[in-house]
Amino acid sequence: MTNLFKKHVMHVGEMASGAKLTVPVYSYNSKSSSAPNVYIQANMHGAEVQGNAVIFQLLELLKNCDINSDITLVPYANPVACNHKNGEYTLGRFDPITGVNWNRMYHFDEAVIAPFAQQNIDASEGKIKANFQQLLLSQIEQKLDHNIWGLTTGQRIAYQLQRMAHQADLVLDLHTGPISSKHLYCPEYTKESANFFDIAHTIFIPNDFDGAMDEATFCPWWSLQQAYKELGRNFVMGEGAFAKESFTVELGSQEQIDLAVAEEDAKSILAYLQYKGVIAKSSEQDFQPQQMTRYACYLKDYKALYSPMGGMVDYLAEFGKPLPAGKPLARILRMDNYGDGDPLHNIALDREVIPILHFASASVNQGTELYKVFQDYFEL
Amino acid sequence: MTNLFKKHVMHVGEMASGAKLTVPVYSYNSKSSSAPNVYIQANMHGAEVQGNAVIFQLLELLKNCDINSDITLVPYANPVACNHKNGEYTLGRFDPITGVNWNRMYHFDEAVIAPFAQQNIDASEGKIKANFQQLLLSQIEQKLDHNIWGLTTGQRIAYQLQRMAHQADLVLDLHTGPISSKHLYCPEYTKESANFFDIAHTIFIPNDFDGAMDEATFCPWWSLQQAYKELGRNFVMGEGAFAKESFTVELGSQEQIDLAVAEEDAKSILAYLQYKGVIAKSSEQDFQPQQMTRYACYLKDYKALYSPMGGMVDYLAEFGKPLPAGKPLARILRMDNYGDGDPLHNIALDREVIPILHFASASVNQGTELYKVFQDYFEL
Amino acid sequence: MTNLFKKHVMHVGEMASGAKLTVPVYSYNSKSSSAPNVYIQANMHGAEVQGNAVIFQLLELLKNCDINSDITLVPYANPVACNHKNGEYTLGRFDPITGVNWNRMYHFDEAVIAPFAQQNIDASEGKIKANFQQLLLSQIEQKLDHNIWGLTTGQRIAYQLQRMAHQADLVLDLHTGPISSKHLYCPEYTKESANFFDIAHTIFIPNDFDGAMDEATFCPWWSLQQAYKELGRNFVMGEGAFAKESFTVELGSQEQIDLAVAEEDAKSILAYLQYKGVIAKSSEQDFQPQQMTRYACYLKDYKALYSPMGGMVDYLAEFGKPLPAGKPLARILRMDNYGDGDPLHNIALDREVIPILHFASASVNQGTELYKVFQDYFEL
Amino acid sequence: MTNLFKKHVMHVGEMASGAKLTVPVYSYNSKSSSAPNVYIQANMHGAEVQGNAVIFQLLELLKNCDINSDITLVPYANPVACNHKNGEYTLGRFDPITGVNWNRMYHFDEAVIAPFAQQNIDASEGKIKANFQQLLLSQIEQKLDHNIWGLTTGQRIAYQLQRMAHQADLVLDLHTGPISSKHLYCPEYTKESANFFDIAHTIFIPNDFDGAMDEATFCPWWSLQQAYKELGRNFVMGEGAFAKESFTVELGSQEQIDLAVAEEDAKSILAYLQYKGVIAKSSEQDFQPQQMTRYACYLKDYKALYSPMGGMVDYLAEFGKPLPAGKPLARILRMDNYGDGDPLHNIALDREVIPILHFASASVNQGTELYKVFQDYFEL
Repeated sequence: MTNLFKKHVMHVGEMASGAKLTVPVYSYNSKSSSAPNVYIQANMHGAEVQGNAVIFQLLELLKNCDINSDITLVPYANPVACNHKNGEYTLGRFDPITGVNWNRMYHFDEAVIAPFAQQNIDASEGKIKANFQQLLLSQIEQKLDHNIWGLTTGQRIAYQLQRMAHQADLVLDLHTGPISSKHLYCPEYTKESANFFDIAHTIFIPNDFDGAMDEATFCPWWSLQQAYKELGRNFVMGEGAFAKESFTVELGSQEQIDLAVAEEDAKSILAYLQYKGVIAKSSEQDFQPQQMTRYACYLKDYKALYSPMGGMVDYLAEFGKPLPAGKPLARILRMDNYGDGDPLHNIALDREVIPILHFASASVNQGTELYKVFQDYFEL
Repeated sequence: MTNLFKKHVMHVGEMASGAKLTVPVYSYNSKSSSAPNVYIQANMHGAEVQGNAVIFQLLELLKNCDINSDITLVPYANPVACNHKNGEYTLGRFDPITGVNWNRMYHFDEAVIAPFAQQNIDASEGKIKANFQQLLLSQIEQKLDHNIWGLTTGQRIAYQLQRMAHQADLVLDLHTGPISSKHLYCPEYTKESANFFDIAHTIFIPNDFDGAMDEATFCPWWSLQQAYKELGRNFVMGEGAFAKESFTVELGSQEQIDLAVAEEDAKSILAYLQYKGVIAKSSEQDFQPQQMTRYACYLKDYKALYSPMGGMVDYLAEFGKPLPAGKPLARILRMDNYGDGDPLHNIALDREVIPILHFASASVNQGTELYKVFQDYFEL
Repeated sequence: MTNLFKKHVMHVGEMASGAKLTVPVYSYNSKSSSAPNVYIQANMHGAEVQGNAVIFQLLELLKNCDINSDITLVPYANPVACNHKNGEYTLGRFDPITGVNWNRMYHFDEAVIAPFAQQNIDASEGKIKANFQQLLLSQIEQKLDHNIWGLTTGQRIAYQLQRMAHQADLVLDLHTGPISSKHLYCPEYTKESANFFDIAHTIFIPNDFDGAMDEATFCPWWSLQQAYKELGRNFVMGEGAFAKESFTVELGSQEQIDLAVAEEDAKSILAYLQYKGVIAKSSEQDFQPQQMTRYACYLKDYKALYSPMGGMVDYLAEFGKPLPAGKPLARILRMDNYGDGDPLHNIALDREVIPILHFASASVNQGTELYKVFQDYFEL
Repeated sequence: MTNLFKKHVMHVGEMASGAKLTVPVYSYNSKSSSAPNVYIQANMHGAEVQGNAVIFQLLELLKNCDINSDITLVPYANPVACNHKNGEYTLGRFDPITGVNWNRMYHFDEAVIAPFAQQNIDASEGKIKANFQQLLLSQIEQKLDHNIWGLTTGQRIAYQLQRMAHQADLVLDLHTGPISSKHLYCPEYTKESANFFDIAHTIFIPNDFDGAMDEATFCPWWSLQQAYKELGRNFVMGEGAFAKESFTVELGSQEQIDLAVAEEDAKSILAYLQYKGVIAKSSEQDFQPQQMTRYACYLKDYKALYSPMGGMVDYLAEFGKPLPAGKPLARILRMDNYGDGDPLHNIALDREVIPILHFASASVNQGTELYKVFQDYFEL
């Protein structure tokens, strides 16, 4: 038996020549409705392409899975960004015209939460889920069915993606770091889910909306649960109608496609989906997470280190392993100082950290983000 | 008599080769202390260069003025931005590495306001002014005397500028639009000051901090005045210790230097400074604002119009004049539609507006900001 | 009577997301074959968009003309370039990945000329014309029907355009300068044609191939005429089989669309085409060049002036008018020198010139091309 | 004993803010004059930074060498390029304003060769060497002591570097590929020198000038030797007055600094210099090339492969090893084709090649250079 998916093509943008930019959307639909629905997208940031390869491998693997719910997969989520070359590289973290981060344009209007809770104070949990999802969707529709002032390039893309994501319970946004080890952004309320990904480093994020896809999909439900709490009705976030989980999955380094690694990452995602009941374990197929030491820290302890000087960087620290206090993360070469100054400058910290990623280029300005590290981390 | 200024050079950044980027700072110091001190900077956004020419003309004109207070003038405020070419143009609104708008990196920590008011609840107005200014400066010093994680490239520049601006009472941040008429951002509490600039269009901004220089210098004082109000002590914003005014002066279009126009703009600024007592009217020198119809609107009514399609734009609307509802702002050429579609598309609004600026290029993507306009405007 | 054109869409490139870039091609076909065939393209350089508006107006005007030959019109000739934004502007003179000028990628293989002349030494003029055109086309086909190593992005576009241009006798490549007056590149052998355009400044170019469209279409014929000459058979370049003319028409400044000006430019082109017999003068339609003083110089006298310093430029010289020796073209502002150096630096030449264009931005590096000027010019 | 070097700082450019860009120059001067003088530079292309680290290690190692001639070392040769960020990466192969490759701006005027040979037809070999070097230097001086039209940004830098290089006999220009194995560009006349570098792949280049540093320093001497030959006086290129050698040393991948690898590369260069007598072998110091299989091909057989389609590339082929005909170099992912086309496209060649480098990013346009490979290679 091979599962059949549906494909449709979404129009998300137009260039100066009139060229239309489109996004392919793949979906598996299931009769069964008890399992959570899934939305997975990749490549919202232009240079972060490996998620497309992971979606390729997911589509290949899902053909032979026993699927219990609806799964939507969206590669090339942002063709404006992924087609934007600056020199040899892809300039993809922000709109090249405005500088706005493509992953900070999703919509969430806090103001609708409290009135909804009040109006639905006695509704059944199923009704709450259906009505609130409908509210979120109608808000997006209203935005897209745009007012006279129009939408920015990024909003038009983000809202179309968010419309699909709001129809799912589990949302995976596939990103990468610049030069990076794999890591996972996971909401604080659903910590145990992090154990089902083959990713050794997790950042637990709070419930504040800052514009990203993961937040845009779980924050409304978190806020709703809080609103009910204030009205005296208690739901557990992550359960029942509130069984919503969203992750930003950082697959490694940008500017790279590796189909073999992508297959491993696809299996890691399927282990999580199997744990959630989206696909069924069978005699032929059983996706289980790998055994590994998993580290985590809270978002406030995921620190960026900015270069104290301009120069050229020999990145030294190994990703993913605790680095003792005082041991250099990097050495900065400053040949202009050779002969009458200090041509090599060590960058070290006064505390133990785990380096997770570093800047994409050896050349840095004073103030360029050199490294991101875990401080005050712990084992999961 | 010719006034003498002092010049010093501030080190604000380092590039990969170790090249140091510096900013020249000019200051006139006066014995008299009753008049407000002034801080004027230009070119925080790289392509917005005309302010440098205005500072040139101000320095020339101030030589022969009767100066009653300290005036600090800072051209080339952001050499990282003004030296950053992308093709023939200057890429200057945001850090090219991160996308962050250079004029959104100033510092304001709301959390210190209420404690300060409580601790200084009975202090004299002079003491309040001195102590609070000291607090603002010490916060900046703390940031610059950086912690182990360092500062971003933009913060390092912004904080050094802000340190100077906090020592002044009147702050003028000289910007330009893309292709633009002159306009002025003015705090709501000091509306009449807008009449002293030779600028026909003013946007009144509320007292919320959004990271810009003008807000960074008046919002702390506004918040302090509010905090005292809650404690039952009333001050008038814009008077006494709270005689703080900050403006973003938009001088016209970017990518242009015109020394003749700059002289006019310098005289306009001197008319405002003479009104404030910074320079004295004399028999030889008397700077008065021009008679003109001045229009204004509130920030919420200063609207951006985003292009509903990709294409090439023939900008039609004249800046600064009311445009009737239904009359086209622009026509968008879509040659790809010629012969089997509509090659010309009119862009019009269903309400009267005053067009203030438009996008810098004829080529737009779907969602590019086409125009900014006043709606619900009024005469000053 | 309204003429009917045909439209087809040419596939010229693919982006990383698989997005296809296409070029619309419009053509009028005529029964009559005595008049020369025409090829007109626009926007090979991304920021030089006004030619698209001119093609729009040509298509509008040609509807009612009496057309005697085949006319092919190609707007948006290079969608890779015209869609490439860097910041707010279009980065369009060169491939952003390689730096190669888009208008230096056309094909001409000198080596085939002499053998062709020898093989066709006694052929009739009509036969020579047909055979040589066939040779040029087959060379392009061979390139496009690519070998195992492939084609660059720019070659794939250029060769597809050149294939159409080789089928015409008159070729107009519509460009613009950065900030510029109108000017015309015209082959030396066909000087009088320059009088039929409403363009006051013409540069006469020699017969050397340097990669551009105009050269790519007339140089092969020039070389062939020379080859016959060496074999003792004399043809006049510009007549009979060799009645080939190619122009680069510089329509003014880049980054601008102006449909009203475009109509004037379209009429100017029709005046040239009427002179060539492509369209017939009628009682309703008679396109005649305007009376004006027309200046020209040879390419070797069309000089670029490079900035002797970095700084910010107040461009002073008026385009198109002789500027006396010693009179400043521009002033360069150097605020870093204010107070302890020379903040204003005049740029002047020791000879009379006619300024034609200047750099697109006020901010220049040491060595940036400031102006292009005619020296040793003469009236046509 | 520690050798002492001299350092001076060369001013090569100015930015819009007036910021000066400088290049540090290190030189060891020796009494002895029999050994060839050496010039080594790095980082002419902005992203190719590893050569700076190699110069660091050379300076460290040379401290304790027995030096027989003058050695000049120039890191950060092009600060305009190495400081130019576009997004996170350094845009460094070409002038961002003009697109001209920084390594194609050196000077060589063929026209002076024949007259010089005629005028010095009977001069001694020593005299020829001295006079011709003087001629080359005076030509550069004339260019730098610029005419009224000025120099481009790149010429100003290139000529200042070339002035130093013309004073040496051996010239090493340290570059890198995009993502690349080490390789060496070596003139055809001095093939055996390639055996003294620890670089397994060499491209033999002909004696044609194409604007690069290596050509700019050996081509004049080659042309001179040819001119003498035509006049009946025979010299051997590479010997006596004509003992000139120039190499472009490609150190691996761009955007990377690795001080440990740099030390290995510095030792490789010292092995070549010891072979040439520049440094003396001693009991403590003996630099010998490593034993390895060295492959070479001629420049005409160093082939670029351009992508037949847009897409995202999984680069498969290992650098430096023969790849059999038909075996894939890369796979191109095209998710837009998934479900209704071919989502994976193999890129293979019909002949055996050695892959040397590939494009820096996984995302390519149709026509992007995917790989450079040796075909028709041979063992050295």
